[in-house]
Amino acid sequence: MFRHTDHLQFDVKPEKPDPVYARKLQELIGGAFGEMTVTMQYLFQGWNCRMPGKYKDMIMDVATEEIGHVEMIATMIARLLEGAPATRATQEAAADPVVAAVLGGMDPQQAIVSGGGASLSDSNGVPWNGRYIVASGNLLADFRANVAAESHGRIQTARLYNMTDDPGVKDMLKFNLARDTYHQNLWLAAIEQLKEDGLEGTVTPNALLDEEHAEHATSLWHLSDGPDAGEGRWATGVAADGVHQNGFLADPQPLGDKASAPPPDPQLYATYDGSRGKPRSAALGTEAGLVGKVKDALDPSKP
Amino acid sequence: MFRHTDHLQFDVKPEKPDPVYARKLQELIGGAFGEMTVTMQYLFQGWNCRMPGKYKDMIMDVATEEIGHVEMIATMIARLLEGAPATRATQEAAADPVVAAVLGGMDPQQAIVSGGGASLSDSNGVPWNGRYIVASGNLLADFRANVAAESHGRIQTARLYNMTDDPGVKDMLKFNLARDTYHQNLWLAAIEQLKEDGLEGTVTPNALLDEEHAEHATSLWHLSDGPDAGEGRWATGVAADGVHQNGFLADPQPLGDKASAPPPDPQLYATYDGSRGKPRSAALGTEAGLVGKVKDALDPSKP
Amino acid sequence: MFRHTDHLQFDVKPEKPDPVYARKLQELIGGAFGEMTVTMQYLFQGWNCRMPGKYKDMIMDVATEEIGHVEMIATMIARLLEGAPATRATQEAAADPVVAAVLGGMDPQQAIVSGGGASLSDSNGVPWNGRYIVASGNLLADFRANVAAESHGRIQTARLYNMTDDPGVKDMLKFNLARDTYHQNLWLAAIEQLKEDGLEGTVTPNALLDEEHAEHATSLWHLSDGPDAGEGRWATGVAADGVHQNGFLADPQPLGDKASAPPPDPQLYATYDGSRGKPRSAALGTEAGLVGKVKDALDPSKP
Amino acid sequence: MFRHTDHLQFDVKPEKPDPVYARKLQELIGGAFGEMTVTMQYLFQGWNCRMPGKYKDMIMDVATEEIGHVEMIATMIARLLEGAPATRATQEAAADPVVAAVLGGMDPQQAIVSGGGASLSDSNGVPWNGRYIVASGNLLADFRANVAAESHGRIQTARLYNMTDDPGVKDMLKFNLARDTYHQNLWLAAIEQLKEDGLEGTVTPNALLDEEHAEHATSLWHLSDGPDAGEGRWATGVAADGVHQNGFLADPQPLGDKASAPPPDPQLYATYDGSRGKPRSAALGTEAGLVGKVKDALDPSKP
Amino acid sequence: MFRHTDHLQFDVKPEKPDPVYARKLQELIGGAFGEMTVTMQYLFQGWNCRMPGKYKDMIMDVATEEIGHVEMIATMIARLLEGAPATRATQEAAADPVVAAVLGGMDPQQAIVSGGGASLSDSNGVPWNGRYIVASGNLLADFRANVAAESHGRIQTARLYNMTDDPGVKDMLKFNLARDTYHQNLWLAAIEQLKEDGLEGTVTPNALLDEEHAEHATSLWHLSDGPDAGEGRWATGVAADGVHQNGFLADPQPLGDKASAPPPDPQLYATYDGSRGKPRSAALGTEAGLVGKVKDALDPSKP
Amino acid sequence: MFRHTDHLQFDVKPEKPDPVYARKLQELIGGAFGEMTVTMQYLFQGWNCRMPGKYKDMIMDVATEEIGHVEMIATMIARLLEGAPATRATQEAAADPVVAAVLGGMDPQQAIVSGGGASLSDSNGVPWNGRYIVASGNLLADFRANVAAESHGRIQTARLYNMTDDPGVKDMLKFNLARDTYHQNLWLAAIEQLKEDGLEGTVTPNALLDEEHAEHATSLWHLSDGPDAGEGRWATGVAADGVHQNGFLADPQPLGDKASAPPPDPQLYATYDGSRGKPRSAALGTEAGLVGKVKDALDPSKP
Repeated sequence: MFRHTDHLQFDVKPEKPDPVYARKLQELIGGAFGEMTVTMQYLFQGWNCRMPGKYKDMIMDVATEEIGHVEMIATMIARLLEGAPATRATQEAAADPVVAAVLGGMDPQQAIVSGGGASLSDSNGVPWNGRYIVASGNLLADFRANVAAESHGRIQTARLYNMTDDPGVKDMLKFNLARDTYHQNLWLAAIEQLKEDGLEGTVTPNALLDEEHAEHATSLWHLSDGPDAGEGRWATGVAADGVHQNGFLADPQPLGDKASAPPPDPQLYATYDGSRGKPRSAALGTEAGLVGKVKDALDPSKP
Repeated sequence: MFRHTDHLQFDVKPEKPDPVYARKLQELIGGAFGEMTVTMQYLFQGWNCRMPGKYKDMIMDVATEEIGHVEMIATMIARLLEGAPATRATQEAAADPVVAAVLGGMDPQQAIVSGGGASLSDSNGVPWNGRYIVASGNLLADFRANVAAESHGRIQTARLYNMTDDPGVKDMLKFNLARDTYHQNLWLAAIEQLKEDGLEGTVTPNALLDEEHAEHATSLWHLSDGPDAGEGRWATGVAADGVHQNGFLADPQPLGDKASAPPPDPQLYATYDGSRGKPRSAALGTEAGLVGKVKDALDPSKP
Repeated sequence: MFRHTDHLQFDVKPEKPDPVYARKLQELIGGAFGEMTVTMQYLFQGWNCRMPGKYKDMIMDVATEEIGHVEMIATMIARLLEGAPATRATQEAAADPVVAAVLGGMDPQQAIVSGGGASLSDSNGVPWNGRYIVASGNLLADFRANVAAESHGRIQTARLYNMTDDPGVKDMLKFNLARDTYHQNLWLAAIEQLKEDGLEGTVTPNALLDEEHAEHATSLWHLSDGPDAGEGRWATGVAADGVHQNGFLADPQPLGDKASAPPPDPQLYATYDGSRGKPRSAALGTEAGLVGKVKDALDPSKP
Repeated sequence: MFRHTDHLQFDVKPEKPDPVYARKLQELIGGAFGEMTVTMQYLFQGWNCRMPGKYKDMIMDVATEEIGHVEMIATMIARLLEGAPATRATQEAAADPVVAAVLGGMDPQQAIVSGGGASLSDSNGVPWNGRYIVASGNLLADFRANVAAESHGRIQTARLYNMTDDPGVKDMLKFNLARDTYHQNLWLAAIEQLKEDGLEGTVTPNALLDEEHAEHATSLWHLSDGPDAGEGRWATGVAADGVHQNGFLADPQPLGDKASAPPPDPQLYATYDGSRGKPRSAALGTEAGLVGKVKDALDPSKP
Repeated sequence: MFRHTDHLQFDVKPEKPDPVYARKLQELIGGAFGEMTVTMQYLFQGWNCRMPGKYKDMIMDVATEEIGHVEMIATMIARLLEGAPATRATQEAAADPVVAAVLGGMDPQQAIVSGGGASLSDSNGVPWNGRYIVASGNLLADFRANVAAESHGRIQTARLYNMTDDPGVKDMLKFNLARDTYHQNLWLAAIEQLKEDGLEGTVTPNALLDEEHAEHATSLWHLSDGPDAGEGRWATGVAADGVHQNGFLADPQPLGDKASAPPPDPQLYATYDGSRGKPRSAALGTEAGLVGKVKDALDPSKP
Repeated sequence: MFRHTDHLQFDVKPEKPDPVYARKLQELIGGAFGEMTVTMQYLFQGWNCRMPGKYKDMIMDVATEEIGHVEMIATMIARLLEGAPATRATQEAAADPVVAAVLGGMDPQQAIVSGGGASLSDSNGVPWNGRYIVASGNLLADFRANVAAESHGRIQTARLYNMTDDPGVKDMLKFNLARDTYHQNLWLAAIEQLKEDGLEGTVTPNALLDEEHAEHATSLWHLSDGPDAGEGRWATGVAADGVHQNGFLADPQPLGDKASAPPPDPQLYATYDGSRGKPRSAALGTEAGLVGKVKDALDPSKP
């Protein structure tokens, strides 16, 4: 269960409204790496965590903080939209290049739909969607996704920091940048902790390593003609997992047969000349199960 | 420019068709972490890479390989759908529990739309979309996203490996698992290489670290009541970047003012009692620029 | 800013796992009228509210409660998925009709992607998206949307209540149903309060009523041939707003000219026989504005 | 079955083309509360209506009218785009601030894709989608959604009315505003009619009111710290349904156990320390059904 | 403006309900090539048509018919869902293989959201969206898209025809198949008519044929190693446009320079070693336009 | 399996950066008829092709070329974005009309997300999605979709050609236009080849023509009141398939019964007055199948 205080986590006080910038800031709410994504990604990871204790508790701490970040950005956008010339007619706007530039750079839905507030969309107006998040239950894979999310989040925030000279906006973004710095460090530390606790290795999942085709787990296939691909650490020496040896396959040949689709079901009307015969039946079911027993029981040819 | 050979990178030979499994495998084509995502993510990262040389060459090698993985999974799905009972009527199907189970577990569009082939959708039939990929130009952030993608890719492949007992399918997945193992190692090595080459640090972007509010770059805000959140490496000791000191803010208080939206534009019809006055104008433009000069030139009150 | 406690708002204790039902419950998380929608709709309405005081405070109370409802459903889904036969191969499953039925009714991504947990999708696996919510700043319009959301939410919950006989699931849903009952009453009361406070009328927005074409604000246009459309309260008597008189236009005729598209820009290659002449220019800008003044200043023909 | 006349329901005659406004008007075609939404929402409600008679007939009347509104807006957009400077090169445009402002404010797809016509998208170019509509079969819930849709539709139309000074555009919008006024009154009247006819109550669905946890159907949970939330009609007096008593829970405590996810299936590779044991089986099926009988029949241990 | 009659264009009378088939039929409503797509595609083409007369009139005839097809399929789906066991609990269902098969094959939203009616989604539950349609204003391109849509529509209908043995369903589909046959012939005839009327040629748009690089308008680039690609009519003889000569480029070499991205803006933080220098400015604007004149007028260095 | 060379298929050398045009070009990458669509459409058609030989080989040739087209456009966009004023603050931009115009016309995500590179979205920033492609297995239907795609592709390219005066951009587009010309001819030739080879006819699928209601396969239903619809080739003479006779149904009457939805399941809470009785059961299963036999075997009333 959650509780809320009306106070924002940090100050959100633009010196002046700026409706053009208000559109750009939408990226930090509804973009694929915006605050909404980390909020929901961490919440679902926390709820999906299988172990009570420090991991789950930490994830819920960060997740709860992130809801407050959505609140900060949404508040900033509303404040940046104060007094925006959104209801000016085109003729009026075209008569004043500044107004025209502002209108051309605004998100029209911030006025028409949200009445001067933020929407749950990115800087191109595309709505946030639930496929942006991942919570697999495997903490190593999830924490790696979190490191990536915080990295892209900080890069986008830094780019946006360079796109304004409003001291109040910059002040808020200095806080966001700092939190992104900490959260990158946090998830990197959490990855180390998982290894230290013996819960995960370097390759995830830490399973099927004995079953996979080990001979294909080591080399870069050189399939483009850029000549320098073999010069990196990925092509020589011991791999990051400490087990495999990195390699470089300079002239790789395909190992498989020719790609082809099987003969089609005539009732699906694929174009077909019959050259590959008729389709085999999908051989499913097993005579060893219940149905098999029932079939046997009902089969007059069986004793 | 690309070239293609009809031979698959690795064998794709299911022992028997299995239309139920063919639906599940769609996740590896059109899911958020499927082969389509890594193909397009790496292609755009390669095309967007700003430096000729080993990074770009390596990215293009891997990207080109991944198109071939989409081809392998698409071929496998078509072969698993051979002879599927897709055109059976409900009555017939309901009369045979095995057929009914197969039909209930199939993706209907694999028959109705694709005529017995794969679609560019995930295992729930949701189409792949371009927001799944990221290519920011910042290689550290991008490689971290790649590590995450390969981690989730290997986990999903491993789960799917456990959902079949067809030796031909398992044989192909053993190859995919191995490539995912290598690709995890590869992107981890590439991250090390970036640091070794002095191109990136630990926190990305390697910028604005002096401008951000440093005092907020170090501590976990304890906003959920799980008592163990302070016990991990993220709360004590030196941070992963070797610079910051990790901390734990046990009883954090909000630093900001009260959240509120500004007074609204009356022409947008937000409900309002007037208690906060009228909106300020959006103060944009600067008298120092061209428009300012023009305004001055045209202003009759100025000499 | 938000805080969280690990305790759920209400008990979430299924008697037995039920992975088929776990898929259906996704509708209450990620459906268009699920808990995620009301959470985000109320949060954005609260953040976008222009008046401090009882409305904003109440909206934030309810919004904060709803995050906890997402948590409850996500937890319920994970518990319903305990021990689900998700990793069974098709052959095995087909041999046991019960297992086959379960697998056919499961959401495959709950296993392959979420590892036995909820996703942020609806019962067909379609991800939640940000266009499901509305926060217009106009509280009457928004509260009406809230009444609708709680109505559809309660109907869907009631339908789902009838689809299970697990006493633990039913116990949780009895709580959700009760909250939906209260929230329907709450938003209806809030609508009355708005009128009582003189902030809104019956028609929203409470504006332009004098400018609109009043003669068209009263009658049902009878455009389908069902004979009984004129028998309802909408066709006679005083309208809900207490101002208009309801009417019925039994044989309506179009009031407009013929629909047609204007002559096309030749450089856009619409098929065209020239019969409608050439396109007019888009006449924009006004001579009265800054640009007009500049034009005049630069026009050699003007003194 | 439908029939069409080339005459528009009302005049659509802009005085002058205005391509910037043409983009904004897209919201009324393809926005979540645009004409397409009410068209399809009402059509599906009509087709899904379970009773012949006045409700179904009225719904089909309004639905049929709304198709004509899509036609009106699509025609208006094409006419506003006449002669738009869409094919001007950037250099040319940048040389003329008016042209530049127009191009910056246009929807590029209206030229590149639609050749100077409307698309089925909103004012940010996001395509309309079928999840915007609802037709539940429950007329009270559906009519409430209709009231909300007409309310947001009229607000957006009113906002757009303020964004133009073209008398022809305003003339058309005066008609749309009037129809929205009538349609708000109509759906409010229809809700009253449902109650008068004894078909629905105040809370919908009119069911399970005796089964739900009645003690939780009355109070606002005070989970945010805004002090005024208890001052509204929602917190005191008789509820809108005339049955419940409104209340205010000033210091609510969670009623549930700790949130947690169950022990995971090892084959799904969730990170797990084993602390919560192994997962229970999903106990499905019942011995009382057909399968139970078959199992019994086949069980050698049973007589 | 549109009118509606309650009578369906053709009979829609299933002999028996069949909820599994009701899900599959969703493809014909909300699929990319379903009735909704052709309805909206033709409506927008008609509204966007630039010439009064036979083309526009015919398009509007067909478009209006298609709305009635959506109505037919929506009605069929509701009738097929009559008495569906949607509210059965999992245990009950698992006890009866027929019920379990039915539930496994149903679309859960048809019950939970639509209350036993159709939704505006495809057979996987993905909502229809506005990007499925095209109306470019160029009738040749649009009619070709219409031929394709009717072809895929008839194929999907034919596949669905094979998936049922209900005589009432088959009767309706025999009508749909026949209309699809006619509509394929119709659009093919309309393409011939366009050429006969001298409005369009074979290649569309009938423009820029003299400006394009003619030497690249004739040959198949042989970029895959399948040996038979040169044996078709596309590789020899006169092209379909009667002008070009088809050819086969057996060993094509790239004509372009190396792919590379330019030096990055440092404020966007792309990883960069400086090897390609600094970015050039985007050289926009022209001194010949209004701004150029103003600049000159204000430039103190100019006389 | 694929291979890649760093050389582009054709030169991609803009004379000057142009970030406004860079946004428009996104349509050719991520639009519904952009290079990504033809790439994936042809790849899936090739992989889904059921016959080895000239069709499959040709499809794979073209598909492989198209990946290189995505590469060309992505490279062009990055080069057009060189030095874009993306990080300018609003105030600065508003002071210079040229900069303001550029910023207003840019895609903000090209800077914030992609760091000065292309994204996988269209010119309105909407991400590409997998439902844009079709690969049905039926080559006639698929090739018709390909003709349509190349037609819309060439139209959009031609429109974009008119929107620039940069000689380097125009040079690349002259190549793209030429390839689109050839590809239109190619798919038209391939359609002729299919007929010549006896694989497909004119109506697709070439099946069920004897079963469909032949009397409805010939006439235009005149459902709109435009008077000229009967004057085209579609209304008289022999149809394109050489079999049917085209006709015109001047005053069509509906052939079906009244549209209605069946009585509802009470547990789904549709509003209902009981006037149509109770719902019939969904009569599924057949006594002739396995379940029937089992039922009989277990039925004590049967001998």
